[in-house]
Amino acid sequence: MKLLAVGTVAFDAIETPFGKTDKVLGGAASYIGLAASVMNADVNLVSVVGGDFPKEYLDMMKKKNINIEGIEIIDNEKTFFWSGKYHNDLNCRDTLATELNVLEHFEPKIPKNCRNAEVLLLGNLHPSVQLSVLEQMAKKPEVIILDTMNFWINHTWDLLTKIISKTDIISINDEEARQLSGEYSLVKAAQKIHEMGPQFVIIKKGEHGALLFNDNQVFAIPALPLEEVFDPTGAGDSFAGGFASYLAKTEDFSFDNLKTALIVGSAMASFTVEKFGTRQLENVTETMLKDRIQQFRSLTSFSIKL
Amino acid sequence: MKLLAVGTVAFDAIETPFGKTDKVLGGAASYIGLAASVMNADVNLVSVVGGDFPKEYLDMMKKKNINIEGIEIIDNEKTFFWSGKYHNDLNCRDTLATELNVLEHFEPKIPKNCRNAEVLLLGNLHPSVQLSVLEQMAKKPEVIILDTMNFWINHTWDLLTKIISKTDIISINDEEARQLSGEYSLVKAAQKIHEMGPQFVIIKKGEHGALLFNDNQVFAIPALPLEEVFDPTGAGDSFAGGFASYLAKTEDFSFDNLKTALIVGSAMASFTVEKFGTRQLENVTETMLKDRIQQFRSLTSFSIKL
Repeated sequence: MKLLAVGTVAFDAIETPFGKTDKVLGGAASYIGLAASVMNADVNLVSVVGGDFPKEYLDMMKKKNINIEGIEIIDNEKTFFWSGKYHNDLNCRDTLATELNVLEHFEPKIPKNCRNAEVLLLGNLHPSVQLSVLEQMAKKPEVIILDTMNFWINHTWDLLTKIISKTDIISINDEEARQLSGEYSLVKAAQKIHEMGPQFVIIKKGEHGALLFNDNQVFAIPALPLEEVFDPTGAGDSFAGGFASYLAKTEDFSFDNLKTALIVGSAMASFTVEKFGTRQLENVTETMLKDRIQQFRSLTSFSIKL
Repeated sequence: MKLLAVGTVAFDAIETPFGKTDKVLGGAASYIGLAASVMNADVNLVSVVGGDFPKEYLDMMKKKNINIEGIEIIDNEKTFFWSGKYHNDLNCRDTLATELNVLEHFEPKIPKNCRNAEVLLLGNLHPSVQLSVLEQMAKKPEVIILDTMNFWINHTWDLLTKIISKTDIISINDEEARQLSGEYSLVKAAQKIHEMGPQFVIIKKGEHGALLFNDNQVFAIPALPLEEVFDPTGAGDSFAGGFASYLAKTEDFSFDNLKTALIVGSAMASFTVEKFGTRQLENVTETMLKDRIQQFRSLTSFSIKL
């Protein structure tokens, strides 16, 4: 199946306790595309960059069979830029700079041959942009996956709940789930979010893993314990890219298959955090992915003698 | 095998967002004993109470085949009392009162017929009390399990590291593991703690589950997602009681069996938090436990098609 992903392609400048980078490749769609390319999924990105965006990044994506036809280049403008600094515990970060640039007036244009995509991943963007993507689709995708963040919960409630009502799978973090639902208990939060539309609710908990809810079913996956989380930037997007591409490859949207997709997504995220930016994700092979999934299996499997 | 557990038997007064209790049965050894009784383990408690301690609590324990011969009663003194208030997120609590009473000069006396226990669980107490228990044993137990807390890390470092060096399995929370090791990464923290003595390191993460480390092996178990965590008091002790009693029952101290023990412990903790104090734990049957363990299995099991 065809996977269409809409999100940012950006420059990031990152500082963590382990070092810092100059402007490197960033943005949700970059991580999504790279994660999806590991399994050689039919992944198609829609985004926008400025004339300053290096051709080498685009070439690298093309070489990985990522369809970048939908990445618009606006020559006389600048690429979206984000800069942040992580603290020792890596769970909180300060945004040092956000320059929207081309993103300010971003009107996604879905290429004709992508309007029939069966799996649509709406990366974290203004809900009106997400809605505009949905309106451009030739037919309703079989699965719509949505990412969002607290900023949109706070500032664009009506538009956000509109796009959520059209979503099959929502992927948000624990804090956002609590904010969106007004419930502290994540079980109750998932119930409330179900009622808003999505059949499946994924709650990401960073170093504590993730939960997948479907009515009264729940699946939990711990994060892989790592010696060092080098740079958490893009972990959530890599997760989404791995998750969505596994669904597109397997063409199976059952709860059981979503569980495996959650593992694939978590494996992708575990690679991303091992180096700065997209550096590690770019190197991941299908063999590395399979090994990592085996690590998840031995991490969580047990037998009962009782 | 015989399980000997040393810890507090106390009065607790608890306030949570869901209500409050008067003085109810509390203390680590109470939770440990009740959890161990679910599988009808040969569990023996060593503790101390005052003359004010209700006979009905002791009778209830006896009825559950908990050997309370080692609970000393000091008639003219008062039982240890703790009172605390939990906040909305239940992860942090304020201690409202701590009256040490009989605990102030507690000198545990191990009954003769318990000195050959194969599994020794040293509940969270002053390290010198934990050392004194070890010295009274007729022979080195096959497995020594240690619980401790940040207070002892801060105030009794030399004694604490001495008892840790004699320990096979240490069970602490993430914050304590970081404090004990000086490492933020839990993988690195476990490595450092291994070097201090324990072959196995359990790191409890509350609502995020627990990790079990053994050299380069690691096992992770999420906590069961619950609609409400009613009262987290005693969750860690119930965990320890379930864990230790499963080892005593199965007489198998391999990494694989410890994984299952971790599940049993987590199941016990998940019961405890459902009601105030020991109320739910007192009602748990072996059938309920088996059902709950099945819930953990379906919570974490997945198949890979990749």
